[in-house]
Amino acid sequence: MLTPANFDFVAGLGLTPEHPGSTHLEEPRGLARGRGVLVRPRSTQEVSRLLAGCTAAGVAVVPHGGGTGLVGGQLTDAFHPVILSMARMTATRAVDPMAGTLMIEAGATLAAAQDAARGVGRLFPLSLASEGTATVGGVLATNAGGVQVLRYGNARDLCLGVEAVMADGTVHHGLTGLRKDNTGYDLRHLLIGAEGTLGVITAACLRLFPRPAARWTFFGVVRGPDAALSLLSQLQDATGGLLTAFELISGQGPRFVAQTHPHQRQPFNPVPDWMVLVEAGAGPGQDLERLLEPSLACAFDNGLLRDGLVAQSDTQRAEFWSLRENIPDANRRIGAIASHDISLPLGSLGDFIAAVPDQLSAIADVRINCFGHAGDGNLHYNLFPAEGRAKTDYAQTREALIECVHEAVAARGGSISAEHGIGRFKQADLARYGDTAKLVAMGRIKVALDPRGILNPGAVLAKP
Amino acid sequence: MLTPANFDFVAGLGLTPEHPGSTHLEEPRGLARGRGVLVRPRSTQEVSRLLAGCTAAGVAVVPHGGGTGLVGGQLTDAFHPVILSMARMTATRAVDPMAGTLMIEAGATLAAAQDAARGVGRLFPLSLASEGTATVGGVLATNAGGVQVLRYGNARDLCLGVEAVMADGTVHHGLTGLRKDNTGYDLRHLLIGAEGTLGVITAACLRLFPRPAARWTFFGVVRGPDAALSLLSQLQDATGGLLTAFELISGQGPRFVAQTHPHQRQPFNPVPDWMVLVEAGAGPGQDLERLLEPSLACAFDNGLLRDGLVAQSDTQRAEFWSLRENIPDANRRIGAIASHDISLPLGSLGDFIAAVPDQLSAIADVRINCFGHAGDGNLHYNLFPAEGRAKTDYAQTREALIECVHEAVAARGGSISAEHGIGRFKQADLARYGDTAKLVAMGRIKVALDPRGILNPGAVLAKP
Repeated sequence: MLTPANFDFVAGLGLTPEHPGSTHLEEPRGLARGRGVLVRPRSTQEVSRLLAGCTAAGVAVVPHGGGTGLVGGQLTDAFHPVILSMARMTATRAVDPMAGTLMIEAGATLAAAQDAARGVGRLFPLSLASEGTATVGGVLATNAGGVQVLRYGNARDLCLGVEAVMADGTVHHGLTGLRKDNTGYDLRHLLIGAEGTLGVITAACLRLFPRPAARWTFFGVVRGPDAALSLLSQLQDATGGLLTAFELISGQGPRFVAQTHPHQRQPFNPVPDWMVLVEAGAGPGQDLERLLEPSLACAFDNGLLRDGLVAQSDTQRAEFWSLRENIPDANRRIGAIASHDISLPLGSLGDFIAAVPDQLSAIADVRINCFGHAGDGNLHYNLFPAEGRAKTDYAQTREALIECVHEAVAARGGSISAEHGIGRFKQADLARYGDTAKLVAMGRIKVALDPRGILNPGAVLAKP
Repeated sequence: MLTPANFDFVAGLGLTPEHPGSTHLEEPRGLARGRGVLVRPRSTQEVSRLLAGCTAAGVAVVPHGGGTGLVGGQLTDAFHPVILSMARMTATRAVDPMAGTLMIEAGATLAAAQDAARGVGRLFPLSLASEGTATVGGVLATNAGGVQVLRYGNARDLCLGVEAVMADGTVHHGLTGLRKDNTGYDLRHLLIGAEGTLGVITAACLRLFPRPAARWTFFGVVRGPDAALSLLSQLQDATGGLLTAFELISGQGPRFVAQTHPHQRQPFNPVPDWMVLVEAGAGPGQDLERLLEPSLACAFDNGLLRDGLVAQSDTQRAEFWSLRENIPDANRRIGAIASHDISLPLGSLGDFIAAVPDQLSAIADVRINCFGHAGDGNLHYNLFPAEGRAKTDYAQTREALIECVHEAVAARGGSISAEHGIGRFKQADLARYGDTAKLVAMGRIKVALDPRGILNPGAVLAKP
């Protein structure tokens, strides 16, 4: 039904076809390989011309940001698509510190957006490990999360408006910085998180915030996940909601890091079973230490906390975060059997963490590395071979292990994809665990906005 | 194309038909009158049965919350619809202070949601004049705003998930409190703000916040709108973003209030040209006065501020707010020629306020009452007869006055409906000023999700 793209087709639209490079064709962990003809438009008009041409000819388009997505949404070996790279659209169109808005093109990296905000004394708070490569368009298409969601929200909460090209090439001029605009259906929120299947975001108006003048960073040893959540609640109450991050870290992560990153300083020895990394931010003149000290003392008294360090310098703060941020890399080096990006209602998080290991060990002997943005109920729940065993030993049990995790999530009203999206890797899971009425609505919306199914076919929804 | 509803049709679905009361048929300001058969379902299942039956029979449904909407979205005299009142679905399904979630049915009033939050020591911050009558379903359907958007966002930002019945009667089970859930298109955000034209929200999971232990309320006299915005920026920087409200008030509002509510205490005499009402909230142990005092002193020094009072008691705080909240009622009593609920990029707000009066006075001699949530760029910009003249004197110029305001808004990239929505009164304005690509997408989405056009036909989009 879709026509393969070739150089002549692209050139016929007045655009320059290119051979894609490895960054366009390789999934970050080598889990999939794509193909297609690369196009790197220089303007929204060129994106418009491309999409209009692709809809007319029935040629698939896979939008490409930084290529850091973890669910295979950015590449496909089917359809021989046009790979639409936003790499040449990186301009800052406008920045207004007083209004707290940054209008920036979709191909700019997340780090560039953060820098543009910093340049005018403001904060763009979306922050994640791949921020030097991930693009504004990519983080919006996937509604990326990261470590500061607790305070500032997901990517969608940080976007006031978008400019986007629809499947037929028409341009949606929604690049507004308005805080209030109730003029019809919210097309912005529909495009955000749609992973390029409903339109291509070409520029966004991002929300900027005052830069916290004061920061407080705490690495603590907690009795367990439930104690961590009680602590979260108490610290939020004590500060009136000033926490910016609340990360839960099981001992397995720092132990993997000790193995793979021996130079990483570890705050506690031996590595405890459960830790939290907490950060708060406030305006000038606010003494966070004074605000938080009574709550910490109380948490020690009632046994929620067993040990803990408040960062005494930016160096120590960086060390704390570096331990957390090295966990995903350590995981890659150790080699996971299966990784899960899940979220749970906060009230079910402790129960999930307590119950699932026994269920998994009934299937196979695995090591669990459980860590993540617990303040948002978001866990990265990754399974590894038992000590001395290899991933290949789990070929027969891998699917059952994954199913066990997903069933436990679904039974508690959680999400099988908290912040990474669906892409091509989690489509079957979405079809299985998704709400039926929502899936039907999604299919109808897809057909309504992209009737020929050219936009990132095979991502999110199995049938374009 | 649509079949008129009657008692037999409703009874045939196993539901109880009723005669609608004045609350269902009358627009709050008497600007329109509706008709239809009233149904007040007791459960989501009954809503589902109703919509399935209406889609099968081609009968229109107008969802009805508190009936306080200001754009005629809640009633129609066309189609003879079923008036679907949510008045019997008011239950709190679950409240979890630690997770910060409140699951409540759509017929509950906004005040009831606030009370349920307060009952567990939490804050549900959405706050507006009609909160005792407006319902959770209504404020979500219209994405209502109010006075605390600056800190906490609009209704859509305060909703984590919805249960909703789609046009064909299928139930979307999206009543989740998850902070992160990237599993496909965001149906929640599509239903929120769609004014009941894409589905009927039957319950919502609302976000709760820590209750500010400390509040700081300031009524100040500013040099003008630009000075007000500079002050806003400085106070946000000083507190790291702790302001909860920032209202701009022109002298006309308090002067009208003095006329219509003579017992209302006025902080300044004579009434100044431009005032701001500012509130900040913080956790326990934070001294807002100490944080904000240096910024105020600086604003006095550099002439942004000319006078000002910090509320010294809850009584004085209530007096300040009562003056602000009496303005809409004073407006009603004086009788506006035309009212506008507009928003502007913050950088254009001062210019708009400076430029438009001359353009209006070239058309007719009017009094302008300009007030609103300036921190969000949202102004209520209402036009009144000149002293000694009557509304009827403006019959010939009213349309030209409205067009003048809307053109000035559009020229500056603003919105012609900031927080009230489109309903039936602003449809033509949306068609005129809306983005073409968005309007096309809206029409396609409407047909995709409600192919027979039974859901609130005539609202938002002219053609169902």
